[in-house]
Amino acid sequence: MSSDSDRECPLDGDPHQQEMVPSKKSAVLVDGVVLNGPTTDAKAGEKFVEEACRLIMEEVVLKATDVSEKVCEWRPPEQLKQLLDLDMRNTGEPHHRLLELCRDVIRYSVKTNHPRFFNQLYAGLDYYSLVARFMTEALNPSVYTYEVSPVFLLVEEAVLKKMIEFIGWKEGDGIFNPGGSVSNMYAMNLARYKYCPDIKEKGLSGLPRLILFTSAEGAAPFLVCATSGTTVLGAFDPLDEIADICERHGLWLHVDASWGGSALMSRKHRKLLRGIHRADSVAWNPHKMLMAGIQCCALLVKDKSDLLKKCYSAKASYLFQQDKFYDVSYDTGDKSIQCSRRPDAFKFWMTWKALGTLGLEERVNRALALSRYLVEEIKKREGFKLLLEPEYANICFWYIPPSLREMEEGPEFWEKLNVVAPTIKERMMKKGSLMLGYQPHRGKVNFFRQVVISPQVSREDMDFLLDEIDLLGRDM
Amino acid sequence: MSSDSDRECPLDGDPHQQEMVPSKKSAVLVDGVVLNGPTTDAKAGEKFVEEACRLIMEEVVLKATDVSEKVCEWRPPEQLKQLLDLDMRNTGEPHHRLLELCRDVIRYSVKTNHPRFFNQLYAGLDYYSLVARFMTEALNPSVYTYEVSPVFLLVEEAVLKKMIEFIGWKEGDGIFNPGGSVSNMYAMNLARYKYCPDIKEKGLSGLPRLILFTSAEGAAPFLVCATSGTTVLGAFDPLDEIADICERHGLWLHVDASWGGSALMSRKHRKLLRGIHRADSVAWNPHKMLMAGIQCCALLVKDKSDLLKKCYSAKASYLFQQDKFYDVSYDTGDKSIQCSRRPDAFKFWMTWKALGTLGLEERVNRALALSRYLVEEIKKREGFKLLLEPEYANICFWYIPPSLREMEEGPEFWEKLNVVAPTIKERMMKKGSLMLGYQPHRGKVNFFRQVVISPQVSREDMDFLLDEIDLLGRDM
Repeated sequence: MSSDSDRECPLDGDPHQQEMVPSKKSAVLVDGVVLNGPTTDAKAGEKFVEEACRLIMEEVVLKATDVSEKVCEWRPPEQLKQLLDLDMRNTGEPHHRLLELCRDVIRYSVKTNHPRFFNQLYAGLDYYSLVARFMTEALNPSVYTYEVSPVFLLVEEAVLKKMIEFIGWKEGDGIFNPGGSVSNMYAMNLARYKYCPDIKEKGLSGLPRLILFTSAEGAAPFLVCATSGTTVLGAFDPLDEIADICERHGLWLHVDASWGGSALMSRKHRKLLRGIHRADSVAWNPHKMLMAGIQCCALLVKDKSDLLKKCYSAKASYLFQQDKFYDVSYDTGDKSIQCSRRPDAFKFWMTWKALGTLGLEERVNRALALSRYLVEEIKKREGFKLLLEPEYANICFWYIPPSLREMEEGPEFWEKLNVVAPTIKERMMKKGSLMLGYQPHRGKVNFFRQVVISPQVSREDMDFLLDEIDLLGRDM
Repeated sequence: MSSDSDRECPLDGDPHQQEMVPSKKSAVLVDGVVLNGPTTDAKAGEKFVEEACRLIMEEVVLKATDVSEKVCEWRPPEQLKQLLDLDMRNTGEPHHRLLELCRDVIRYSVKTNHPRFFNQLYAGLDYYSLVARFMTEALNPSVYTYEVSPVFLLVEEAVLKKMIEFIGWKEGDGIFNPGGSVSNMYAMNLARYKYCPDIKEKGLSGLPRLILFTSAEGAAPFLVCATSGTTVLGAFDPLDEIADICERHGLWLHVDASWGGSALMSRKHRKLLRGIHRADSVAWNPHKMLMAGIQCCALLVKDKSDLLKKCYSAKASYLFQQDKFYDVSYDTGDKSIQCSRRPDAFKFWMTWKALGTLGLEERVNRALALSRYLVEEIKKREGFKLLLEPEYANICFWYIPPSLREMEEGPEFWEKLNVVAPTIKERMMKKGSLMLGYQPHRGKVNFFRQVVISPQVSREDMDFLLDEIDLLGRDM
């Protein structure tokens, strides 16, 4: 490709649509570019930000609690492409046009803040984490050295310390990651590093064959991964029993508590994770039940020998100079596989400051009480069948339409039931009245999975959910 | 730890500081929790968000272009801990107190938007990406399935397509990741997967020993990683020559253009990456020179055989149901090692829409023209010494204080020069007048690295930079 041939009409339009051209009087020119003064029209930019903030406030924040609004304004991909003006052109768009685009983006986006969005393991609007998120975006920090992120590094330290306290460790270390999967990957790397501290020199081929669970084929077991709160069923592994085995065999115990970890905030429900203090590492995502906003995911590590740093340190000379004038132990960025890293702890911190520990506990208790209410309603109602008694806030159930209610539970029944949830899901999305997930799982045909999180949700929404599913599916 | 013993005074305070208690009349109670109505005080929450937005507007956005403001308000870690109220307590704080906290967080955070923040490979304020970021935070999407992120998935597709066009591929695939390091990791995984497609079944121990560069010891070379724009020097590898070798030996060519990729937007400067269209994969971070905000990092892959999906797919049944009512090829989340993923493409899209391709080109051209101006000034001024002629926007130089100017460039000279940059850095941070980085590199003692990015920066800031360094260091 020639360097000039990739624009259809490179000179068609004014490159200075949004950014100003400084006066050419007494201009300093280099390569044809005027270098005097800034080129951004700050006044116009600020006005644009203000107008957009008003739009966000009106169209997202104020509507977030309004159940009369649609959860989604469904359009299939090809149609949505026609509705949105996605093309990036040679010349820019004026502010009023950009605001129209913003309005369209909001209109056709799913309202994950809506009280009847139950589709994922996150939902609802937390005003405090939202403010923290706006601040983060405006300040644009990267959390790796104290010199560029003094506040956010101290906040992360404080939050990790508090989370470690709730796990029940006396001390520990940790880091916020972009997602629970990344936290789980870290845990595996740390366990492997601890098992083979020379891996960074010898490489993978210098290791014995490692496996995650014990076996008798001559491989070296090093890690057991337990789960507190599975994604579909919300199931919890018996941590104490697993910890006994790990202790006996010297295995690293990692607990993926991405979803279930938030139960630790509740004195009533933390027994679900009994034994978690015996884990070597824990993944816990406050962006799920504690509503810190996507993403807010901590990996907590019991080891205090600086294992994270030993395992991941790359000692970048341009960031982690050792001759700085302050205590460089606060430059925690060398514990991460990322270079730039977002201050996700800050969002959780702001909510915690606002609600207090007791307020967070209240949220967990309420979500689980609402779940319990929904379970009892499902048991009472004809045509609803619970998959199993839930341990947590995942309520898995089938809706059995009238035409199937008298049928024997044989192959034909299950085959027909399998299409009920997808069909109702299609209907609810096209109507925009609510969103919840469905899936098959371990030989069970498609069932609904209802997840309760948000404090904006009430038992009226639980009743609505069951009524609406019945309304949408009773002709099937 | 007992489940109840971890709070000093669990009943000391009102758990309902911020969230309302619904009326107990005709209340539905489960486990002692009232389930009627939402518990969030939406009015108070909305007011808090509005007030915080005003604060962010005043203290961050409006001040971002004001050079008379400090870049940072330096406090050492222990002192800053005293100044900030970091503790998370049992009970929450009232809104006016939270707003004070927000004000403190802003005050003691480094102003990475400031025209004289040159410390990292990102800087400045882009009003358009900022608006996109606010929208993202308010809408709280996760980009994995079309059903929950219809708009953001289509935007990501459009942006990736455009970036691929600028690389010069006819077609390709890609994904946005939390950081260039993660993109580089993906590239290695993809190259390895292509080389050993049965790796997911056989595991690492089933592979031959792989290495990144050719060698004669019986290992199997599979990947060459070239860099377009190194972090410290801003150096570019000769891609065409490297591609010749890779083609000859059937090696995967990955180009880490995290920093330098943005030169592709400029017809004048894209020659720095000549040959990039021959790469198999490219990492390119628009959050650096194109100011899309941390983070905005794409991995682009030339292969069109769905390699990303083949390599990373985990087929989670609760997300990627194949019996959905729409075209599930838009559910691109199964291409990622993450589950939740942020819509980072959207920020870049918004800026691109606002400025047009020509406006983005203008930014790159201006940053490089300003770099050129600074280089010429450094050459003119006594006491400043260029480390090398820069290829890009990293200007690496020493400041030599008067006391060293007559000294022979022997061991004593270099030893003394080594402490100059750290000392001046300490002084500039304590004064808050500007921030730029320093580091030693490949046998060179500590030198300054100036990075020019933001359109808010002008040649006056370049002059200020040199004057200020001289002012802060001339007594050394």
